Amino acid sequence: MPVARLLLAYDGAAFHGFAENPGVITVAGTLRGAIERVARHPVALTGAGRTDAGVHAWGQVVSFPAPPALLDLARVQRSVNRLCAPALVIRSASWAPDGFDARFSARWRRYRYTVLNRETPDPFLARTAWHVVDPLELDLLRLASDAFVGEHDFSSFCRRPKGPTGEAASLVRRVLEAHWEPIGPDGVLRFDIRANAFCHNMVRSIVGTLVEVGRGRCSPGEMRTILRSCDRSAAGPVAPAHGLCLWEVGYPPATESS
Amino acid sequence: MPVARLLLAYDGAAFHGFAENPGVITVAGTLRGAIERVARHPVALTGAGRTDAGVHAWGQVVSFPAPPALLDLARVQRSVNRLCAPALVIRSASWAPDGFDARFSARWRRYRYTVLNRETPDPFLARTAWHVVDPLELDLLRLASDAFVGEHDFSSFCRRPKGPTGEAASLVRRVLEAHWEPIGPDGVLRFDIRANAFCHNMVRSIVGTLVEVGRGRCSPGEMRTILRSCDRSAAGPVAPAHGLCLWEVGYPPATESS
Repeated sequence: MPVARLLLAYDGAAFHGFAENPGVITVAGTLRGAIERVARHPVALTGAGRTDAGVHAWGQVVSFPAPPALLDLARVQRSVNRLCAPALVIRSASWAPDGFDARFSARWRRYRYTVLNRETPDPFLARTAWHVVDPLELDLLRLASDAFVGEHDFSSFCRRPKGPTGEAASLVRRVLEAHWEPIGPDGVLRFDIRANAFCHNMVRSIVGTLVEVGRGRCSPGEMRTILRSCDRSAAGPVAPAHGLCLWEVGYPPATESS
Repeated sequence: MPVARLLLAYDGAAFHGFAENPGVITVAGTLRGAIERVARHPVALTGAGRTDAGVHAWGQVVSFPAPPALLDLARVQRSVNRLCAPALVIRSASWAPDGFDARFSARWRRYRYTVLNRETPDPFLARTAWHVVDPLELDLLRLASDAFVGEHDFSSFCRRPKGPTGEAASLVRRVLEAHWEPIGPDGVLRFDIRANAFCHNMVRSIVGTLVEVGRGRCSPGEMRTILRSCDRSAAGPVAPAHGLCLWEVGYPPATESS
């Protein structure tokens, strides 16, 4: 059966996270309901990233094997957007090669975290940036971020889930990039992190810890010690969800061509 | 008595307009309440622009004669921001020369209107841009905008208020600039209009009419005819409030120095 691939943007404030969860409004639940209403056929969605409650997405990817009745993807996109926008928007819809799966075909995910670092708040950034009043030292943020690049056990930065048979799941992930950039002159700082995959709360714990470094409460050199300790209590606090955005998901070139 | 001058930003969605109005939450009412709570003294505010319900501000200016108890404006700014942010933020606070009045000293006001012109909506622009799906012709928008520059009677574009003694108030205003710019490659269009003053609904009626031109439903040449007709029914629809933002207010150089 062909596989439909959707590129999604959503406002995290409107949903209790990505994954379906009976009784609460989630991205996957809302999207599946809308697609099924348009297509008049049940669909089984897979998403590239299980974003938490309050976390935004600009480049979430979702896929589902599509019965022939769904063949007009342009119509699905228009109709779903009419039902779900502006909180949830299908930015594009296309056919993916056989066997494509938004989650398992993905090679990497890129998240962006935005910090507004100045005394005065901004009404127009309040929903998408964490307002940090204490001045952050950009050089320290950058130095500390370098420690995360490479393959590490992220037990210090993640809630450890149990595998289906009760065994502890691996929290080893490979971070490909991690860097901070100032955006404009007014104290907006953006943290970009790309990894093969992320575990639960990983970006928000890393950002929370880096901000402690930027404030001067912790040294950049301590990042490697915290990583190696594999101790959840060693890292800093979890940064708020509303500053985080799933920005982009990367797939092998063969899956990009269709 | 010295005069305090505040530069304000606010999210229009949080308020029933700028002007105080008993029983509803307005910008002036909220700000006055917060200042009086901090200063423990009544204040009388004047604002440069009476923005409507839903209209945002990035550069609203407010002034009030300040008793000595209010002399620490930095503290007023911090405390009011703690009470009112993120919906309402004092961006800066300073002392203005004697006789300064945010409304009557102003030489011009600049408003910005943002249109998202493409089929696909955007969850992150939904609160600050009008989503127009029909393709707009930028050249037509620009040509039509030129007609508004200069001194005109804007009766066709404004609700006519009655003066205090019942006589009709003048709707003659002088537009200093009016232009459209595309912002980035993804269909965001920004209309900037600067005038000595604006009458009620003026920017939104102009934008609504210009968008009719951009859609090809009306020719740029008709703008002058509509202006000259001084007939409210000749103009196009009123564009939605959430795309509009009071961007900047200009004062004579002498009032900028303190």
